[in-house]
Amino acid sequence: MTAAVERESLTLDPADWAPTRALAHRMLDEMLDRLEGIGQTPAWRETPSEVVAALAEPLPGDPQGLERVWEDFRRQVLPYSALNIHPRFWGWVMGSGSVEGMLGEMLAGALNLNAGGANVAGTLVELQVLQWCRSMMGFPASSGAALVTGGSTANLVALAAARDAILGPEAEQGVQASGRRLSFYGSVETHNSVPKALRMLGIGSSGWRAVPTDSDFQIDLGRLQQMIAEDQAAGYRPAGIIGNAGTVNTGATDDLPALLAITRREGMWLHVDGAFGAIAALSPALRPIVRGMEQADSLAFDLHKWLHVPYDAGCVLIRDREAHRAPFTQPGSYLTRMDRGPGAMPVLFGEFAPELSRAFRALKVWVAFKAHGSAIYGRLAEENVAQAAYLAGRVSAEPELELLAPVPLNIVCFRYRGPRPAGDEELNELNRQILMQLQCDGIAVPSHTALNGRFAIRAAITNHRSRRADFDILVDAVLSIGRKLAVQRSGDRVIG
Amino acid sequence: MTAAVERESLTLDPADWAPTRALAHRMLDEMLDRLEGIGQTPAWRETPSEVVAALAEPLPGDPQGLERVWEDFRRQVLPYSALNIHPRFWGWVMGSGSVEGMLGEMLAGALNLNAGGANVAGTLVELQVLQWCRSMMGFPASSGAALVTGGSTANLVALAAARDAILGPEAEQGVQASGRRLSFYGSVETHNSVPKALRMLGIGSSGWRAVPTDSDFQIDLGRLQQMIAEDQAAGYRPAGIIGNAGTVNTGATDDLPALLAITRREGMWLHVDGAFGAIAALSPALRPIVRGMEQADSLAFDLHKWLHVPYDAGCVLIRDREAHRAPFTQPGSYLTRMDRGPGAMPVLFGEFAPELSRAFRALKVWVAFKAHGSAIYGRLAEENVAQAAYLAGRVSAEPELELLAPVPLNIVCFRYRGPRPAGDEELNELNRQILMQLQCDGIAVPSHTALNGRFAIRAAITNHRSRRADFDILVDAVLSIGRKLAVQRSGDRVIG
Repeated sequence: MTAAVERESLTLDPADWAPTRALAHRMLDEMLDRLEGIGQTPAWRETPSEVVAALAEPLPGDPQGLERVWEDFRRQVLPYSALNIHPRFWGWVMGSGSVEGMLGEMLAGALNLNAGGANVAGTLVELQVLQWCRSMMGFPASSGAALVTGGSTANLVALAAARDAILGPEAEQGVQASGRRLSFYGSVETHNSVPKALRMLGIGSSGWRAVPTDSDFQIDLGRLQQMIAEDQAAGYRPAGIIGNAGTVNTGATDDLPALLAITRREGMWLHVDGAFGAIAALSPALRPIVRGMEQADSLAFDLHKWLHVPYDAGCVLIRDREAHRAPFTQPGSYLTRMDRGPGAMPVLFGEFAPELSRAFRALKVWVAFKAHGSAIYGRLAEENVAQAAYLAGRVSAEPELELLAPVPLNIVCFRYRGPRPAGDEELNELNRQILMQLQCDGIAVPSHTALNGRFAIRAAITNHRSRRADFDILVDAVLSIGRKLAVQRSGDRVIG
Repeated sequence: MTAAVERESLTLDPADWAPTRALAHRMLDEMLDRLEGIGQTPAWRETPSEVVAALAEPLPGDPQGLERVWEDFRRQVLPYSALNIHPRFWGWVMGSGSVEGMLGEMLAGALNLNAGGANVAGTLVELQVLQWCRSMMGFPASSGAALVTGGSTANLVALAAARDAILGPEAEQGVQASGRRLSFYGSVETHNSVPKALRMLGIGSSGWRAVPTDSDFQIDLGRLQQMIAEDQAAGYRPAGIIGNAGTVNTGATDDLPALLAITRREGMWLHVDGAFGAIAALSPALRPIVRGMEQADSLAFDLHKWLHVPYDAGCVLIRDREAHRAPFTQPGSYLTRMDRGPGAMPVLFGEFAPELSRAFRALKVWVAFKAHGSAIYGRLAEENVAQAAYLAGRVSAEPELELLAPVPLNIVCFRYRGPRPAGDEELNELNRQILMQLQCDGIAVPSHTALNGRFAIRAAITNHRSRRADFDILVDAVLSIGRKLAVQRSGDRVIG
C-alpha cells in the first residue's frame, strides 16, 4: 500500500512550486541580460577543455535538480554558444532571433500543444499564420501551405509534390513501380538540400542535373534547355526546375520568369528555393529581384533566417493544394474526424508535411509578426542589403582586398590578396588562416566558401543587430590580420 | 542622411528593455500559474465563435507591440488550448510536458542556436544527449543517432537507411535507376507514418505489405513469412520488417526476437517503431515486453510522448553509423570543415537527418534529463501501465462496459454496451456520442479508434499528472453519459 501511494504521487511537477518559480525568473532575467548585452561579448569563444570534459557526462540516473542544471548551463553552455545572435555574426545564413521569438518559445513550451490539427485555438493560430505566409509571398489563399523545420524540409515537401504530380495516378504505387525516370534541374549553385531531398525521394543522382551558371552565378538558360532536350532524347521525363531566389554562396537569383516559361512549355514543375531570398518580396525596393517567384508551382522559405524567428521554422507553399496533400496523406483509424470536441479537426497538418505530431511553431511566428508588424522585415532586409553594398564598397576601395563575386543581395564574398601578387593556392591558405583568426579572436564570424577554386571570406548579412561600424571592424581586422600573417608567412618562407 | 541614420537604428530589439522585461516576467508567472493549476481547468473547451473570428486577423503590417499580443494570447489562445498537459488527457498518444521542458525551450529560444554542428558547446550537449539516448535503449556507442522532430521523421530516416543499405552502391543513383522493387513488411496495426515514409522514399504502396495480426494485435508470423516468400517468387526484394514496440491502437508489441530471426535469415533490415513503447526499456519491470528491440538495425522513439519533453523531439538510432549517414550526405563548399573556430565542426548533424539548419532540441532534453534523472521515467511508465490495468479492471467490473482489446501496456480500448444487448452499428454511434460529450463537458479527453469494426473509446495513458481518481472520474462519466444517451436514443426510437 505504501508503495502504491508513493508511486501515485510520482510526477514531473515540482513538489514545491515556489523555488522553481523563483529560479525560473532568475533564468529569464539572465537570458534577457544576455540578449541586451550580446554586443559586448566575443562573437565566438572556444569551449575550454575542462568544459568539454564536464559536458561528457553519462546519463544521470538520479535527479540533479533544476538549480544544479542551471549552474551547469551557465558555466558550460551559455558562454560558449554565442554565434548568430551576435551583431558581428554573418556566417552561413542564420537569423538573429528576437526577444519576442524567445517568449513565443516559452509560451509554446508551457502549452506543449501537439499542433497536429486538433480543434483548439492553436490550430486556428497556425492556419492564420499560414495565410500570412501566403499573402507575404503573393500566393493565392487556395494554395497548400505548411510550417516545417526549415528550407531543407520545405524543399523535400515541394519536390515530393512535384514528383507525384508528374507521375500522376501512378505516384501512389511509388517511383519503383512506375518504370519511369524523372529528371530535375537547378544551377550548380543550388543548395545541397535539393540533391539530398531528391535522394530521399527515390530520384537520386540519376535524376539530378546541376546546370552551369554564368559569371553572375545565375543558371545558364541555354545549357539548361540543352540538358532538358538531351534528357528527353535519352528517355527521361524532365519533371521540375529548381529556381534559386538567393543562392547560398553569393545571393544570386536565377531568371525566374525565364524558368517559369520553360516549365510551362515543357509541362514541368517550377519550384523556387527562396530560403532567405524570398524575403526580398517584403520590400518594395527589393521585390523586383525575385519577380516571378509568386507564379511558381511551389516556394520554400525560412522563417528562422531573414525573418529572425528562433530555430526552427520554415514554410512551404504549393499552388495546387491537392498536389501538396497527395504524397502525405495516409489513413489511420485513430485519426478519423469527429463532429465536435477536440477531434473535430479543422485540418490535419500531417497531410501537408512529413510529421503527424508537430511542434506549435506557429505561435512564435504569430507573436513576432503581431508584435513587430510585417513591414519592418522588408525594411530590415533593405538595411542588410545596404550594409552588404557598404561592405562591398569598403572591400573595393582597399587595394589589399578583392571582391570574388557580384553582390546582388546581402552576401559579400571577398578575400585578402595582400600588397603583392600571389597565386590562388597561396591566397586560399592565407585567407583560411585569416578567417579562423578573426573568429578565434572573437571579432566577427563570417564563414567561407569556394568560388571558381578560390577560398572566399563570406559575409551573409541576415542580422538585425549589425551596424555599419561592425563592417568597419570586420574590414580593419581582415586587413590587420592579413598583413600580420602575410609577413609571418613570407618570413617563414625566407627562413624555410 | 536622416533616412540613413533612421534605418541604421532599425532592429527587432526593444528600444527600452525595462517594460519588455517586466512583461516577460508576467508572462512567465502566468504560465507557471497555468501549469500549477491545470487540473482545475476543463480538459477541453470549445473556442467561442467570437474568438474564432478575432483570430482570423489579416497579416498586421504595423507593430501591435508585445503587450497587445500578450493580451490577445491570454484571451484568444490560452483558454482554448488545454489538452495534453491536463491530468485527464489520454487522447492519441501525447506527452504532458514539464516546467523544466518549458524552461529548456526558453533558454534555447534565447540562445537561438542553429544546431547544425558548429564548434560550440551546444553541439557537445547534443552529442551527449544522443549518447544518453543510445545508452537508454541499449544501442552501442558506435551507432548512428539523431534528434529529429518525432517518430514520423525517425521512421523516415531509418527506412531511408534501410532502403539504401539494401540497394547498396546503386542507392546513390536513386530507386528509379536501380530497376529493383523492394518490399517492406509490418502489421496492419503499424502507424501510418510508415507507409507515408515509404511513399516519400519512392517505395510507395507497391512495396508496402500490411500483414494481418493475431487476436492480441501482434503481427502474424506465419502470414509474414508467407508474404515474404510470395514476394520473392514475384521478383521483389524483401528489404525490411517494421516491428512495433507499442502499437498506436492497443499498445501491442510484436514478437521482436522472432522478427529479428526472420530478418537475419533473409538478409533484411529490422526497424522497430517504438514511438512510445520503447520507453518500457527504462523500467526493469516492463523491459521484457520490448526484449529484442536493442538488437534491431534501427529504432525510432519519441521524446515528446512518454518522456514528456515538449513538442517536438524524437530520436532515431541506427546500428550501422555509415548506413545512417549515407542517404543524407551531400557536399557543399560552404560547409567544408575548418581547423579551428566555429567551422571546426565536431559533427555535421545534417548528415544524419533531413535538416541542415536545426533547432537546438537537445537543450530541453538535457535540462529535463539532468533535472529529473532518467530513473523516474521508467517509474512513471510503470505507474501509467498500472493505471491502465486499473482502468481495465474497472471496465471489466462494470457490466455496462466492455474491453475491446487486451491491455498489454498503457492503452485501454473499451466501450459502453448498455444494459441490453445491442448491435455494433448502434453501439458505434452511441460511443461516438459518449466520447464527444465527455470531451465537450471538459471532463476528460480520451480519443477513439476502430477495432474489428467496433468504435472504441481509447485511453492512451502517457501522463505524469494522472491519478487513479482521474480514471474513476472517467468511468463514472462514461456510465452516466452512456445511460443518459441510451435512454434518450431508445426514447427517440419509440417516438420515431
